Amino acid sequence: MIETDICIIGAGPVGLFAVFEAGLLKMRCHVIDALPQVGGQLSEVYPHKPIYDIPGYPEIKGLELVDKLIQQIKPFLPGFTLGERVDTIRQLPDQTYELASSEGTIIHCKVIAIAGGLGCFEPRKPVLAGLEKFEGRGISYMIRNPSLYEGKKVIIAGGGDAALDWAIYLADIAKRVTLVHRGDTFRGLPDSASRIFELAREDKITLLLKSHLTKLTGEDHLTHVGITDHQQNEQHLATDQLIPLFGLSPKLGPIADWGLGINQNAILVDTLDYSTNRERIYAIGDINTYPGKLKLILSGFHEAALMMQSAFHFVYPREKLNFKYTTVYGVNTF
Amino acid sequence: MIETDICIIGAGPVGLFAVFEAGLLKMRCHVIDALPQVGGQLSEVYPHKPIYDIPGYPEIKGLELVDKLIQQIKPFLPGFTLGERVDTIRQLPDQTYELASSEGTIIHCKVIAIAGGLGCFEPRKPVLAGLEKFEGRGISYMIRNPSLYEGKKVIIAGGGDAALDWAIYLADIAKRVTLVHRGDTFRGLPDSASRIFELAREDKITLLLKSHLTKLTGEDHLTHVGITDHQQNEQHLATDQLIPLFGLSPKLGPIADWGLGINQNAILVDTLDYSTNRERIYAIGDINTYPGKLKLILSGFHEAALMMQSAFHFVYPREKLNFKYTTVYGVNTF
Repeated sequence: MIETDICIIGAGPVGLFAVFEAGLLKMRCHVIDALPQVGGQLSEVYPHKPIYDIPGYPEIKGLELVDKLIQQIKPFLPGFTLGERVDTIRQLPDQTYELASSEGTIIHCKVIAIAGGLGCFEPRKPVLAGLEKFEGRGISYMIRNPSLYEGKKVIIAGGGDAALDWAIYLADIAKRVTLVHRGDTFRGLPDSASRIFELAREDKITLLLKSHLTKLTGEDHLTHVGITDHQQNEQHLATDQLIPLFGLSPKLGPIADWGLGINQNAILVDTLDYSTNRERIYAIGDINTYPGKLKLILSGFHEAALMMQSAFHFVYPREKLNFKYTTVYGVNTF
Repeated sequence: MIETDICIIGAGPVGLFAVFEAGLLKMRCHVIDALPQVGGQLSEVYPHKPIYDIPGYPEIKGLELVDKLIQQIKPFLPGFTLGERVDTIRQLPDQTYELASSEGTIIHCKVIAIAGGLGCFEPRKPVLAGLEKFEGRGISYMIRNPSLYEGKKVIIAGGGDAALDWAIYLADIAKRVTLVHRGDTFRGLPDSASRIFELAREDKITLLLKSHLTKLTGEDHLTHVGITDHQQNEQHLATDQLIPLFGLSPKLGPIADWGLGINQNAILVDTLDYSTNRERIYAIGDINTYPGKLKLILSGFHEAALMMQSAFHFVYPREKLNFKYTTVYGVNTF
């Protein structure tokens, strides 16, 4: 069992900076994240894209900011549990909390800070009979290891960047790539769309526009996909793998069952201290909501600072909080 | 007359970053500050001291942060009026505002953002009959040009760093330096205090401890200062210049007369958008107050971001605000 003062759920920029604000008040933190690495969306969604609105950084790439934050919180020796999702929380008779992860890790803490960003990202799925039956048996929503598709017949469905990029990439690897898209234009980058049309002209991919998935066939494993065009003609394409790439949809996941006030997939908080309706549980960053809320990293930083002032009273119930400036006292490690 | 969308009063870090948040929404800013340079307290109080709690900067010196912010707001071409204090504001029939500075500069704007930090710093003054009469005629509260004291008899009063540092510095320049202090120990750095006692032993300065100023004498110009010790003995010291260095005290200054809700020298705001009780006037950064307020630069950044969303409706009353992320759209100059 892991013992800590504050358990921070989410290792994105706001969760990381919360360790700093807690550390200034001599509170220890343990950070847990379902993703296998720190940084949250910064690492997952735009690691190499420049961000322009971090105050004091005219431009900084996602991963750079993560590195800086990790450096900044180092003096406060945070613990990390990565690649595990918090599934349940349980309040003990002394008001403290016990959290259990998807892998069975138990964390005992006095305060919970939910910095879960947009929650868990789940793939948007097509509505098709028998879909679940073939998941992992011919259907996947994510490409982790492209070499698995070597010499295979692959159908990719979707019209965004992920669908275009993977169709282009797999055209060289797979036996045959078929790209199925409802429209006849693409939402992805114009460059990628041009390349797709070029590959189709060269017969290096099969492009089925104004078409959609209508049927899945197979015994143990998917063997055929029914595809219907806008004139209602259905063809049954033999395939080894169907990869619907309709984007990711953020979900609160297990957090939705913890008895917190929720509005439109976000946790309701009081802007006084970003506390939720449950004592000792706070929510900061993109996962919370309040009147005027902006989903900006810089707002999460502010929320983390205010939150820790309030959390202090649960961690040190008998002590008086003395607010000190780092310019005067510096940063002291534990 | 200067025309702008938003007049930002205060060129400290929060005022500067407000230009950025306004710029993202295509609103132009003019920044005015009573100090002769940008940066506010960062430039004035701790230019070379490291700050540790700017998110993403494990350590940054005050002036460095100012440079970064100036670079960050460059695309939005802010105007600057420095070394002038805003004295009066006047609301015009169309609800816009006209500001007049101490030097007569007029700025016309649709929205006012007060980012005035701790306000104007004013010297703490001793309570002495005739004090005002001699201000600028033998009494000053600040040393701008030390060479003016060459060959002069100078009395410095105070026990903090400023008093110690200037007494040490002027000992080499002035004809005679007398340091008057109420206590017999100093609040300044131990090193400086040692040096003062050393200079006194070497008779390079006159040190009057447990003593205070009691009388000012002179016709057009100050000629004598009465100094009384703890045994109530008063001596009248001939002098060319009295320099009371009792520290700076932050004052709201003229802002206090603008009809804004004030509590303990800070402007009351609504945390929804950091608006004051007067429409089109906002207050952000150290100068505002609300339940849970922390005087942190990072909080001012957040306040600036939220404030500009609200200000948008006064600058573009007919347009709908579309919130866009810089990672998607970048930063576009005017």
